[in-house]
Amino acid sequence: MTVVLGLDPGSRRTGYGIVRDGDKGPVLLACGCIRTETDSFPQRLKQIYDGVYKIAIEYRPDELAIEQVFMHKNADSALKLGQARGAAICGGLAAGLPVHEYAARQVKQALVGKGSADKLQVQHMVRFLLKCSSPLQLDASDALGVALCHIHHRQTLRRLQLAGVVLR
Amino acid sequence: MTVVLGLDPGSRRTGYGIVRDGDKGPVLLACGCIRTETDSFPQRLKQIYDGVYKIAIEYRPDELAIEQVFMHKNADSALKLGQARGAAICGGLAAGLPVHEYAARQVKQALVGKGSADKLQVQHMVRFLLKCSSPLQLDASDALGVALCHIHHRQTLRRLQLAGVVLR
Repeated sequence: MTVVLGLDPGSRRTGYGIVRDGDKGPVLLACGCIRTETDSFPQRLKQIYDGVYKIAIEYRPDELAIEQVFMHKNADSALKLGQARGAAICGGLAAGLPVHEYAARQVKQALVGKGSADKLQVQHMVRFLLKCSSPLQLDASDALGVALCHIHHRQTLRRLQLAGVVLR
Repeated sequence: MTVVLGLDPGSRRTGYGIVRDGDKGPVLLACGCIRTETDSFPQRLKQIYDGVYKIAIEYRPDELAIEQVFMHKNADSALKLGQARGAAICGGLAAGLPVHEYAARQVKQALVGKGSADKLQVQHMVRFLLKCSSPLQLDASDALGVALCHIHHRQTLRRLQLAGVVLR
């Protein structure tokens, strides 16, 4: 059984979701949002880094999954997002987690079946797959989405290995 | 006596410089460059984070100084730089260092006396102030520049405090 920590970083809100991949399908262990509440940007990075590290120590996930970000419209907000993402990844690295990145299209493809799905469709599938009756915050459901994508990817790799397919 | 770690982060090369602020002026303790040599971006962030952390543990600086980055022409490179900067700051935070940010103009103003000075003028003053006869790599001299700016800023604050000036 593998436990995956999914992250959706931002400089003000970093969504997280912890999913266990069991025999009876994925199980939601925890989800929420690390809110940064200070005007000092380095302090915000520290809150993100500490927050991710504490979650990793508390729930002991085996792996970290995070969405790749390729393009951004605004260079200034890209710089802020980049730093938040760097801090979040380092929080996981400090707890010894291997990091796996997925493009947004891969997450949508894995969950909804098409790479052009919208956020609400992804959120709907996250709640369906995790049998979650209560509503989810958007940051948390995005984080759970990338965790589920990673679990799906691992399962596919395992099935291919069992079938004797060698990936190069 | 305060020891300051200056950083100039980048996703492929992160310059560092350690300066001790003594009674006889600033003294260069060490400088160099953390090179990231892997195609995996999270691994590069790990190398930056680990590199800064190790330097901080080895030289035991009291404070970290880093240049602020406001604008960037290209959003994609801003994202990469942002992540590298986040990883570098987290490496320092993990070693317990307080982080101080300075705008590029402040660094140039503190070293050369004018905010519009060019990189070579800054490098020249870094070598002059640190009595450094050998050439310096550009990443390392930028990192030493922000460390010297921080020392200058601390000295000014101390003089104002001694003169009884209360800063609000």
